[in-house]
Amino acid sequence: MSQRTRLTPEQRREQLLDLGVRLFAINSLDEISIDVVAREAGISRGLLYHYFGDKMAFREAVVRRAAEALVAQTAPPETGEPVERLLASMTAYVDFVDANYEGYVSMVRGAASDPVLRAIYDEAFGALGARIFEANVDFVTDSPAARLIVRGWQAMSEEMVLSWKADSAGLSREELLGVLAGSLPVLLELLGGAG
Amino acid sequence: MSQRTRLTPEQRREQLLDLGVRLFAINSLDEISIDVVAREAGISRGLLYHYFGDKMAFREAVVRRAAEALVAQTAPPETGEPVERLLASMTAYVDFVDANYEGYVSMVRGAASDPVLRAIYDEAFGALGARIFEANVDFVTDSPAARLIVRGWQAMSEEMVLSWKADSAGLSREELLGVLAGSLPVLLELLGGAG
Repeated sequence: MSQRTRLTPEQRREQLLDLGVRLFAINSLDEISIDVVAREAGISRGLLYHYFGDKMAFREAVVRRAAEALVAQTAPPETGEPVERLLASMTAYVDFVDANYEGYVSMVRGAASDPVLRAIYDEAFGALGARIFEANVDFVTDSPAARLIVRGWQAMSEEMVLSWKADSAGLSREELLGVLAGSLPVLLELLGGAG
Repeated sequence: MSQRTRLTPEQRREQLLDLGVRLFAINSLDEISIDVVAREAGISRGLLYHYFGDKMAFREAVVRRAAEALVAQTAPPETGEPVERLLASMTAYVDFVDANYEGYVSMVRGAASDPVLRAIYDEAFGALGARIFEANVDFVTDSPAARLIVRGWQAMSEEMVLSWKADSAGLSREELLGVLAGSLPVLLELLGGAG
């Protein structure tokens, strides 16, 4: 059994984070039980605190890990038409929120009041937005104004996906994705029209 | 001087709320000083607590008042082309956020963690969104899916206006408004295309 395996400190830390991220998927941050994590890892609460400091620090480490997973999993394919690559990335985003709804919602809420969570969230939000420009997508010319539009589009996407997850409003996943991926080029065109 | 005027309890309550809303414009909720409000009104802290219960209850009453002002001030004109009415409403929205930036930001953040603030925010957000349908704007057919789109568009608008207020990114007010008002019909068209 894995509980009996002697792990290096780094392996143990990883094991605990993996457990935390699994709990994050179906629990709000406040609900992630240190007791459950320690029991599943076959260690004491004290040892868990030894690795992470305190309960809040453990939860923050879990959110950081989840945010990294979000950024990694939504990486667009290297090749393909811009719209297809955006669609692939947004599909992965919807899948991530779908699979981690409880934790994701609590991360968004926590980010509003907790400075550490806010920094983690902002970094992930910024990485997702910057990617639009790094990917050199044809319909986007990088500019401060375009970055503002992308920020707004991200906030819209998050709100729509969270609303859809709570109540699909009769929209299929494909219809939702059509709006999410289709809206960015159109919003940037509006900017062009305004400029 | 107004401090010496004998006010009815209702007038006093209104006076204190008005003072709070003025402070809300340029302070975060946490920064609204009960001492300042009481001093400006020429009453004791104790009397202020008598009217509102406690500090948090006063701040909540201020947010409720500010949210009501937001909904009232952004009411679209009764007549005119749909796009013009939407533009007028969004202009009032940008003006409101512009004039109440510190308080607005703290309301958005507070709503994420405080259930009472969340309820006030959600009610205002819902009223602003429902208005799109009540106004019988030509390009909107009411449906659960259209309401989901409007929610996303509202989140986008809020994010864009707050970002723009923090750093205009070279966008004029007119350009920003062009994107805000121009995007809703386009987003709803995308829904039509998807449906």
